[in-house]
Amino acid sequence: MSKYDKALTVFAPDGNLSQVQYAFEAVEKGTSTIGIRGKDCVVLGVEKKSEVSSKNKSKYKLQDPRTIKKILPIDEHVSLTFAGLQADARILANRARLECQSYRYNMEDVPTVDYIAKFIARIQQKYTQRNSVRPFGVSCLVIGYDEEEKAPRLLLTEPSGAHSSWKAHAIGRNSKSLKTYLENNYEADLDEDKVIRLAVETLLESVESEKHIEIAIMRGDHKTDKIDSEVIDRIVEEIKKEREEN
Amino acid sequence: MSKYDKALTVFAPDGNLSQVQYAFEAVEKGTSTIGIRGKDCVVLGVEKKSEVSSKNKSKYKLQDPRTIKKILPIDEHVSLTFAGLQADARILANRARLECQSYRYNMEDVPTVDYIAKFIARIQQKYTQRNSVRPFGVSCLVIGYDEEEKAPRLLLTEPSGAHSSWKAHAIGRNSKSLKTYLENNYEADLDEDKVIRLAVETLLESVESEKHIEIAIMRGDHKTDKIDSEVIDRIVEEIKKEREEN
Amino acid sequence: MSKYDKALTVFAPDGNLSQVQYAFEAVEKGTSTIGIRGKDCVVLGVEKKSEVSSKNKSKYKLQDPRTIKKILPIDEHVSLTFAGLQADARILANRARLECQSYRYNMEDVPTVDYIAKFIARIQQKYTQRNSVRPFGVSCLVIGYDEEEKAPRLLLTEPSGAHSSWKAHAIGRNSKSLKTYLENNYEADLDEDKVIRLAVETLLESVESEKHIEIAIMRGDHKTDKIDSEVIDRIVEEIKKEREEN
Amino acid sequence: MSKYDKALTVFAPDGNLSQVQYAFEAVEKGTSTIGIRGKDCVVLGVEKKSEVSSKNKSKYKLQDPRTIKKILPIDEHVSLTFAGLQADARILANRARLECQSYRYNMEDVPTVDYIAKFIARIQQKYTQRNSVRPFGVSCLVIGYDEEEKAPRLLLTEPSGAHSSWKAHAIGRNSKSLKTYLENNYEADLDEDKVIRLAVETLLESVESEKHIEIAIMRGDHKTDKIDSEVIDRIVEEIKKEREEN
Amino acid sequence: MSKYDKALTVFAPDGNLSQVQYAFEAVEKGTSTIGIRGKDCVVLGVEKKSEVSSKNKSKYKLQDPRTIKKILPIDEHVSLTFAGLQADARILANRARLECQSYRYNMEDVPTVDYIAKFIARIQQKYTQRNSVRPFGVSCLVIGYDEEEKAPRLLLTEPSGAHSSWKAHAIGRNSKSLKTYLENNYEADLDEDKVIRLAVETLLESVESEKHIEIAIMRGDHKTDKIDSEVIDRIVEEIKKEREEN
Amino acid sequence: MSKYDKALTVFAPDGNLSQVQYAFEAVEKGTSTIGIRGKDCVVLGVEKKSEVSSKNKSKYKLQDPRTIKKILPIDEHVSLTFAGLQADARILANRARLECQSYRYNMEDVPTVDYIAKFIARIQQKYTQRNSVRPFGVSCLVIGYDEEEKAPRLLLTEPSGAHSSWKAHAIGRNSKSLKTYLENNYEADLDEDKVIRLAVETLLESVESEKHIEIAIMRGDHKTDKIDSEVIDRIVEEIKKEREEN
Amino acid sequence: MSKYDKALTVFAPDGNLSQVQYAFEAVEKGTSTIGIRGKDCVVLGVEKKSEVSSKNKSKYKLQDPRTIKKILPIDEHVSLTFAGLQADARILANRARLECQSYRYNMEDVPTVDYIAKFIARIQQKYTQRNSVRPFGVSCLVIGYDEEEKAPRLLLTEPSGAHSSWKAHAIGRNSKSLKTYLENNYEADLDEDKVIRLAVETLLESVESEKHIEIAIMRGDHKTDKIDSEVIDRIVEEIKKEREEN
Repeated sequence: MSKYDKALTVFAPDGNLSQVQYAFEAVEKGTSTIGIRGKDCVVLGVEKKSEVSSKNKSKYKLQDPRTIKKILPIDEHVSLTFAGLQADARILANRARLECQSYRYNMEDVPTVDYIAKFIARIQQKYTQRNSVRPFGVSCLVIGYDEEEKAPRLLLTEPSGAHSSWKAHAIGRNSKSLKTYLENNYEADLDEDKVIRLAVETLLESVESEKHIEIAIMRGDHKTDKIDSEVIDRIVEEIKKEREEN
Repeated sequence: MSKYDKALTVFAPDGNLSQVQYAFEAVEKGTSTIGIRGKDCVVLGVEKKSEVSSKNKSKYKLQDPRTIKKILPIDEHVSLTFAGLQADARILANRARLECQSYRYNMEDVPTVDYIAKFIARIQQKYTQRNSVRPFGVSCLVIGYDEEEKAPRLLLTEPSGAHSSWKAHAIGRNSKSLKTYLENNYEADLDEDKVIRLAVETLLESVESEKHIEIAIMRGDHKTDKIDSEVIDRIVEEIKKEREEN
Repeated sequence: MSKYDKALTVFAPDGNLSQVQYAFEAVEKGTSTIGIRGKDCVVLGVEKKSEVSSKNKSKYKLQDPRTIKKILPIDEHVSLTFAGLQADARILANRARLECQSYRYNMEDVPTVDYIAKFIARIQQKYTQRNSVRPFGVSCLVIGYDEEEKAPRLLLTEPSGAHSSWKAHAIGRNSKSLKTYLENNYEADLDEDKVIRLAVETLLESVESEKHIEIAIMRGDHKTDKIDSEVIDRIVEEIKKEREEN
Repeated sequence: MSKYDKALTVFAPDGNLSQVQYAFEAVEKGTSTIGIRGKDCVVLGVEKKSEVSSKNKSKYKLQDPRTIKKILPIDEHVSLTFAGLQADARILANRARLECQSYRYNMEDVPTVDYIAKFIARIQQKYTQRNSVRPFGVSCLVIGYDEEEKAPRLLLTEPSGAHSSWKAHAIGRNSKSLKTYLENNYEADLDEDKVIRLAVETLLESVESEKHIEIAIMRGDHKTDKIDSEVIDRIVEEIKKEREEN
Repeated sequence: MSKYDKALTVFAPDGNLSQVQYAFEAVEKGTSTIGIRGKDCVVLGVEKKSEVSSKNKSKYKLQDPRTIKKILPIDEHVSLTFAGLQADARILANRARLECQSYRYNMEDVPTVDYIAKFIARIQQKYTQRNSVRPFGVSCLVIGYDEEEKAPRLLLTEPSGAHSSWKAHAIGRNSKSLKTYLENNYEADLDEDKVIRLAVETLLESVESEKHIEIAIMRGDHKTDKIDSEVIDRIVEEIKKEREEN
Repeated sequence: MSKYDKALTVFAPDGNLSQVQYAFEAVEKGTSTIGIRGKDCVVLGVEKKSEVSSKNKSKYKLQDPRTIKKILPIDEHVSLTFAGLQADARILANRARLECQSYRYNMEDVPTVDYIAKFIARIQQKYTQRNSVRPFGVSCLVIGYDEEEKAPRLLLTEPSGAHSSWKAHAIGRNSKSLKTYLENNYEADLDEDKVIRLAVETLLESVESEKHIEIAIMRGDHKTDKIDSEVIDRIVEEIKKEREEN
Repeated sequence: MSKYDKALTVFAPDGNLSQVQYAFEAVEKGTSTIGIRGKDCVVLGVEKKSEVSSKNKSKYKLQDPRTIKKILPIDEHVSLTFAGLQADARILANRARLECQSYRYNMEDVPTVDYIAKFIARIQQKYTQRNSVRPFGVSCLVIGYDEEEKAPRLLLTEPSGAHSSWKAHAIGRNSKSLKTYLENNYEADLDEDKVIRLAVETLLESVESEKHIEIAIMRGDHKTDKIDSEVIDRIVEEIKKEREEN
């Protein structure tokens, strides 16, 4: 809150970039979002309550549920979810889609998940160094299937332009407690059912109601599928029952 | 109201973009505007009292009623209404029209309602990230008929560049109470008469006089028709009578 | 008068654009200017006292009366008057003239009055959104004859970039009281003499002396004619006599 | 003297453009300069004391009198004098000269005096609207002979970009009292001798010594001639004698 | 913390460039990173704990260890590590890679390590002199093998754009004490095993646990090899034992 | 010293351009420099003590006397001296030289002294109107021989972009007293010896020691010759003797 | 330390350019650097202690001595040393090298030492006048052999863009006392041994230990040779002995 905040992305005396830090605040205000890598799949979980406008705090009862697309397809084998400013995320998603098309056209090959995540991160870095723009107020979880390594991938890009690969990660509201839950409960090479179950369990730490949980899965066959809400409801039931029993 | 407001669209320490928030204030000062999706139609309702200039607070008695076009046609099957700065809305409408022409020419196909709403939202996002421009001070309700899904569509774009799809929504002055009314009274798959009736009822919550209500409807045949003021008057009469009876 | 005024056109926390509001102040300091639509004609009335420089408050006794052109021809069938900064108005008029020539050349057709007014308004809007320029400090009344509708047109463009169509309107100094007078005395489909008479009456509410009244009329034949000062003097005489009688 | 002065040409809350107002101050500090239109001629009168630098307040005893060219030729039939910043005036004069050459080349015709004055005014307006430049600190009196109307012309351009036509006008130091003198003593259609006499009389209201009066005349033959200092001295003598007699 | 910090990279009255100094703070907050030149090899040592985001202070238990690439390959014979902002370092690495490709293509030769380090330093200098960008918040250690001199090279580039060559150097957190350790223990022409041992010893001065040490070595054969963690563990054991014995 | 100084060259409320005024201060801190026009020659006189850096206040004992070129040749028949920032003056001199070459090439003629002085002044003006540059901190005395008028010329250009012609003039330190001396002692059509003598006398009013006087002369043959220091010493002797006698 | 420092290089009210003055501070913090012209040679002397980063105040024990190149070759017959920001100096050296190549290619001739020094000074001046860059924080001593004059040359360029020629000069830390020593001990036309001896003597006034002295010499044969440290040690011994004897 010092005067170093005035200019666009410049260093404060402590070596921090204030605008980047504030962009992280925008991310932490975003929807709770998690990603978990399983044996042959990778799962994304998001709070379904849309976040279209931070001004309209009223309920979203009349919003079209079909269109609350928090999970954005990028290419056949890559999808992206995010926490933070929806409009910023869509810009990044659009650019990544165009890059994929261009890559396929020029290279006559499919870009890897890592390539795409790095591409997104590089755009985000650029917006932290030029003083005529603000950083992107969004962190992205990029999932995909790596054809070469025959393995699912879960990558994070951040407002600073940093990117990293994770077994499981959480961003957005309550990300701290969600990450703690994941750290305590994650196991390697979980099968599909268990990964979905872990995703639901984790989000229940944050969301107000199980109605708000949305889960998507990407398998080796490259399709991102949405898990039916009945399935999620059933899992929630199981979890509740188990917890009551304990 | 802190110093973070000085620069153009930059993050405040809490992760908010001040200029975008203030642009939302411009929207909330705009005319009360609602949209409701029915079974085979989608209806827009606006306060007719024009808002040309916030400086000229005098009456608009001598303004040409024919030209107070709050409902702007974009393409054969798409129209737009808005709350906020009229001049900004017209810029967005013009760009959307050009994009439609260009799309038809290049794709030899008709752009979908969603395509157009996303196009508008993307322009709005851009104006939140570059520091040499201010955001657009306008929220738009875009309506249209989706040829593929054979369904009417109601989309919202906002100063932040976010867009979303709604069953029914309200923007502008008193949007909060109008949304509450819609949430309490909306039913799915209403027929044309009932949607119009609901639109009139909702706007009566906000407008000073029924004289100021303007209703337009888009049906599967793609025409946006204005509802005659006598029809509106009759509906208002009915509503009043009913309310008195209760 | 807060710090939000410093930057060029940005939103203040209440959603207003300060520079646009101040530009409206420049308009309200301008010459009293009115427009009235009659049955087959449209009339403009202006205070003749020129406003070349707000610094030179001395009299304009020696200014060349022939050149105090407050009514600027744009195209054969369109003229423009204004309140506010003379130099700004001339820039807008020049651009509109060029656009008319270009339109005629490219479209092999005559641009409508509405087209021209919208063109001017769009330029004005642009200067409210880019931060390297200030808004135009001028409101324009654009008159013309609509060939298709066989009707005279009176359009307003404002510093905000808004435009609207009017039966009668007033801008500049004392515009509020002039508008009230018009609202109380305007009747639809007045013939030429009555429109001129109403214009003179209205301006007498504001100008210090009838010597300063200048009236122009546009008829279906597309010519903008200046009303002779003797005619105006005669009308003033009549009005005075009538008022004394009452 | 409020904070609105900081930015370049923007509106202050009262609708004024501060930088333009301060540029008018630069004009009012300039040499006293007058123009008077006679029957077949137009006369310019200036204080001869040069104003090269406002810092060097010492006398100009050793300055080369031949080069104190306050009256700048623009084209065969057009000349310009000014009050304000000498260097700014020369820039405007240079641009006007180039425009004349270009006009003659492209149009194969001679630009009118009005065309040139408007051209200069338009440049001056541009420098009031873009925020990377300051306005021109100069008002110009443009004289010329209108071939079509067979009449002399006297035009004023100002820092605001406004232009206007005058029978007689004064700018620069003491312009107010000089204008009053002109208003009280100007008569239409004066012959050459009387116009020169009026110019000398008027400047005597302001200058310290008749040694500092410089008079130029443009006649129908398009030549701008300087009046010999002996002629001026003789006129001054006459005036003094007459005044003593009265 | 004076007002000189506001503008981008400008001189403070004491001749320092504040933004460059703050960028050095960003470096000093980075991971502890060392480089040591041996007889025929050069070794890099880094803290393995990733630094993706300074906001997420929680543990990195679930981060994909394979992807924490602090040692970035630039060309066959050149690698780079860094302390400071990860995203900034990747930008520099990308540019250096492109330059290598371009050099090989244009010169039909391999760029020397010095050439690459100077290239990176020159980019960093540029970002300290133009006021529309901030400096890079990163110091790089560039290693490589000099074909001509048949010798390993260790080069440092800094936010100021300075570059220098070192026998051994440390950057990032605790760099001061690490450098002191190196100064006290470095010997010329150490063989491979001893250089690795010195690297481990030095990093143990800073890192919390030996688990976090990552070592890479470049030999005359141009390959950068990662030292297996078991090898590192064994060395740590030896060191501990020895220390206990003493 | 008000806030109007912050921005680059803008008007202060009193109509002054602050940056231009401060640039005049830089001139007044410069070396004392005079120019005197004689019958067939023009003489420049400067303080020889160089001014390379205002920071190094120590003596210039070891500076290469041959290179302290305060008198810069521009073209065969034109030279320039200056007071103010040496580096700025060299930039102006270089541009003037290029213009001369270009003029000779394009016009197949020699540019006049006036043309060159105006060219320099125009560059100086430009730097007072654009806000991304500062004015030149230098006043120039341009001397030359006018082939057409067969007369020597002495012209002044200033930071404001103004230019003027002089019989004799002084700039830089003590310019006020030097000008007074010139005004009291200048006579028209002095021959070469007397002009040199006057130059020495005048500079003795300001310089600490006659050792610091440097005199150059341009005659009709277009050569700028330096007067030998012995000649100057002799003149100084004479002056001293005469003064003692009186 | 007034508000005039905020903007980039603009005039303060006293006519000084603050950023240029602060850049001189950066120079005075730089390594002590001297140049001395002898009969047929010119000698440069620098403190060897490198200055890579002003942040790392620790010792430079492990820096590669071979690479501390304070004396940068520009062309066969020209070298440069500097005091101030290393990275800035390298930029200037690189540009000078490119200019030399380009000069040789275009002119088919060798640029003179003066040409190169002026070229460097001109770049430095440019960075004092444009407001989007800061000045170079470096003074350069340029040495070379002038083929035409058959004489060695020693030139100084400064942050202001000024350049000058010297018999002997000192820049950087303690430059004042070094200059005084040179002024007291310099003699013209010293032979090689004596110039080297004078350089060592002078630097001993400033450096902490003779170990830190580095001397380079350029002779008529155009080679810049480094004097062996043993030679320097021997000279230091002699000097110490002599001083003890006195």
